[in-house]
Amino acid sequence: MKTACLISTGTELLLGTTNDSNSVFLATRLLERGIKVIGKTVVGDSRETIKMAFASSLGLADMVISSGGLGPTRDDLTKEVACQVMGCEMVINQAEVKRLEDFFARRQRPMPESNLKQALFPAEAEIIFNPLGTAPGMYLKKDNKVLILLPGPPREMEYMFKNEIETRLERDFPQALNRVTRKTIKILGPGESQLEKILDGVIDDSPELSMALLAVDGEIHIKLTADGQDINHSKELMEKACQSIKEALGRNIVGYDNDTLLSVVAACLANTGKKIAVAESCTGGLLAKMITDLSGSSEYFWGSVTSYSNEAKMLYLNVKRETLEQYGAVSPEVAREMAQGMQKQSGTDLALSITGIAGPDGGTKDKPVGLVYICLADGGFLQVKEMHFVGNRESIRILAAKTALDLLRRHLKNGG
Amino acid sequence: MKTACLISTGTELLLGTTNDSNSVFLATRLLERGIKVIGKTVVGDSRETIKMAFASSLGLADMVISSGGLGPTRDDLTKEVACQVMGCEMVINQAEVKRLEDFFARRQRPMPESNLKQALFPAEAEIIFNPLGTAPGMYLKKDNKVLILLPGPPREMEYMFKNEIETRLERDFPQALNRVTRKTIKILGPGESQLEKILDGVIDDSPELSMALLAVDGEIHIKLTADGQDINHSKELMEKACQSIKEALGRNIVGYDNDTLLSVVAACLANTGKKIAVAESCTGGLLAKMITDLSGSSEYFWGSVTSYSNEAKMLYLNVKRETLEQYGAVSPEVAREMAQGMQKQSGTDLALSITGIAGPDGGTKDKPVGLVYICLADGGFLQVKEMHFVGNRESIRILAAKTALDLLRRHLKNGG
Repeated sequence: MKTACLISTGTELLLGTTNDSNSVFLATRLLERGIKVIGKTVVGDSRETIKMAFASSLGLADMVISSGGLGPTRDDLTKEVACQVMGCEMVINQAEVKRLEDFFARRQRPMPESNLKQALFPAEAEIIFNPLGTAPGMYLKKDNKVLILLPGPPREMEYMFKNEIETRLERDFPQALNRVTRKTIKILGPGESQLEKILDGVIDDSPELSMALLAVDGEIHIKLTADGQDINHSKELMEKACQSIKEALGRNIVGYDNDTLLSVVAACLANTGKKIAVAESCTGGLLAKMITDLSGSSEYFWGSVTSYSNEAKMLYLNVKRETLEQYGAVSPEVAREMAQGMQKQSGTDLALSITGIAGPDGGTKDKPVGLVYICLADGGFLQVKEMHFVGNRESIRILAAKTALDLLRRHLKNGG
Repeated sequence: MKTACLISTGTELLLGTTNDSNSVFLATRLLERGIKVIGKTVVGDSRETIKMAFASSLGLADMVISSGGLGPTRDDLTKEVACQVMGCEMVINQAEVKRLEDFFARRQRPMPESNLKQALFPAEAEIIFNPLGTAPGMYLKKDNKVLILLPGPPREMEYMFKNEIETRLERDFPQALNRVTRKTIKILGPGESQLEKILDGVIDDSPELSMALLAVDGEIHIKLTADGQDINHSKELMEKACQSIKEALGRNIVGYDNDTLLSVVAACLANTGKKIAVAESCTGGLLAKMITDLSGSSEYFWGSVTSYSNEAKMLYLNVKRETLEQYGAVSPEVAREMAQGMQKQSGTDLALSITGIAGPDGGTKDKPVGLVYICLADGGFLQVKEMHFVGNRESIRILAAKTALDLLRRHLKNGG
C-alpha cells in the first residue's frame, strides 16, 4: 500500500480553536484511493519547524501533501522550504508572472513586488492552477517521491485536489488506485455489543475484508473495507458482505453511505403522501427542528407543539388534566393523548409524540433520568414505546428524537 | 516564550473520521500558561514513524507532550521509542509491578506477561499515576528538554494533565507560567468588518496586548491576550482593554469567556420572573430547542408552536387568513400576529416569533432567501425586526434563532 504524510501550515491551527479540516478531507479521499496516511503534522510559520516537517515526512512516506503557506507574505514559506528539502532550485515561471500581472491589471491595482514569489517554481514541477484564489499549487515527482503543495483555504484546496491532483495520482500510482472499495452501513436499534454478537460469524475479519463499528449519535455505523486482488474482486467481496449483513440485520439497517435517518424518513413520507404533526415535551423542539432540517419538508410537515408545560399539553393537545394528575406528564398514557390530540388538531394522518426526563434534574426512583415514552399514531393505529436512555441531557434528547423518527421509519417501511 | 510540540499516537486519528481532541485540549491549556505550541504530529503505530516524530519534536521544542500508545499490546510503542530517542535506559519499576499485580488480583484474573512492560521506566523519570486506567504516564526532564507521556483516552489524559502535569510545569518553567492572561468577549450585532472599524484605535495591537476576531455561529468573539512584564502588568493591560471595548460596544457585548447567549438570556429571565412562549416558522423548532438546551428552562419556558403550515398558524396562533393572504406568511404583519397570538394563548408576558425563508428554495425577488421577520412581545410592548441573513439553510436558521434570543436579551437588559 502506498503511503502519504500530510502537513498543514497555519498558526491558527496550533491554537487549539480551529480544527484541521483539510487533513480530515485529504485522509478520507486518499484512503478511498488505497493510499494510507501514516502521519499528519501541523506547523506554524517558522522556517525551522516547516523544514523539519518536510524532511521527516519525505523520509517516511511515498508522498507528502501540504496545505497552506503559499501566499505572497513573508510568513508564507512552505514552497521555498519544501523545494529546498527536495533539492530543487526555483526559477521564475513567465506564464505565472503573466497570470499575476493580468490578475492585478483586471483589478486596476499595481502588483506588489512580493507577489512575484508566487511565480517561483522548480523547473521540473507541474504548476496547479487555482481558479478560486491567487496562490497556485504544485505537483512534483522526483527520486520516487511525490511532493504536492496546495493552498490552505479548504474550498480552494478541495477543488484543486479533486480536479487536478487525483488524475495525477492515478497517473503516477496506478496500482494504488481503485483496488479498494468502502461502504458504510448505518444501524439504529441494537447496541454495539448486541450488534457484535449478531455479526459474529457473519463477517470474517480478514486482510481482504475488514469491518469496524463506529458509534455516531445513537447510530452505529458499520465501516466495511474490501481490498481484494483487483477492484472487481473487492466489489465482489463487498457485495457478499453487504448481503450477509442485510440478512442478519433486516430493518435495523437505516441506510448506506450518504443516506441519513432523516433522508430515508423523508423519502418514505413522500412515497406515502401522508402528512405528519409532532408533539414534544422533553426534546423541546428538537424533533421538529430535525424534520425541518431538510428543505422541502413543508410538503409533509404540518407543524408541531412543544408542550413544555402541562397547560400547553392541555390547551393545544387536549391532554386531560386527570391523565396528567393520575399518571404524571411522563407516562405512556400522556404520550398517547399527546399523539392523538396532535392528530386530531392538525387533521394529519400521522402524529409523533415524545415525553420523558432529559435530566440532569427531575428524575425519581420510579421515573429516572433517561425514561422516555414515544407514541406514533397513524389513522386509528397507535404504538407506544418505552425507552431507557443513558447519557447526558443533550445525548438523551438526540436519542429520543432519533428513536421517534426510527419508529416512523419502521412503520412506513412495513407499509404502515 | 517556552515552546512545546504535541504528538498523538493512534491509527484511528489518521483515518480522517476522529478529531484529535487531545491536542486541542493541550494547546489551549498550554497557551493559558504562556507555553506556545509550535507543532503537532499525529502518527500511527509504526516504530519508524513514531521515532521520527519524537526525534524532530525534541529537536525543535522545549517540551514534547505525547498522548496514546502506552497500553500493554505490541502496538503500544510510544514509551519505548520515546525513551530510546531521549537516550534513556528502561528498568523495571518494582512499585509499578506491585500496582499491576494488585490490579489483576482485585479482578481475580492472572496478569498477562505482556502487561509487565507497563512497569518499565527510565530510572530518572517521574511516574504519573493514572487513577482512571491501567497505563501510567511519565514526566522526564533531561538535557534541558522535558518529555511528557500521557495515555490516549481523553478523560484519563485530561485528568492527569490537570492534576499531575501542571504542577510539574510550574516547578520546571516558573517564568513561563502565569504571565499571560486571556479573555474572550462575545459580540452579537455588528458584522466583522463593522466591528473592526468600531475597534480601530480602541485597541492598539502590540506585542504586549494582541487581539483576534473569530466568527462563531453568527457571533464574533474578540480574543484578547495580554503578555506583560508579569502577571499583574498583564492583568492591568487586560482590564484597560476590556474597559475600552465595553465603552465602544455597549449592549453588543453578550458576555465573557464561559457566558453564552443562552446562559445570559436565562439569567435575565430568571431575574424578571417572566415566562416566555415561542412561535416559529422557518426555524422549525430550533429556537425552542435552544431555549430547552438548558436544564431548568421549564421555570420560564411555557412551550412553543412550530407553525410550519398556514393552518397551524391560524389554528394555534390566531393568525388571520386575510393577513396571510394579503401580506404572505413571511411578513412583519404575520410575525406580529404570531407573537400576539402566542402571548394570548399561553398567557405568558413574553412571546417571540420568527417567520422567514431559510432556503435554498422558496425565495422570490421581493422576498429572497435569508429574509426573516422576528417579533418580540412583552405585555403591550411590541417590536418587529427585519433581517437579511446570508448563508445556507442551516446557518440562516441558526442566525434567526440567535437574533431572536438577542432581541430578548437587549430588551430585558434595558429593563423591559
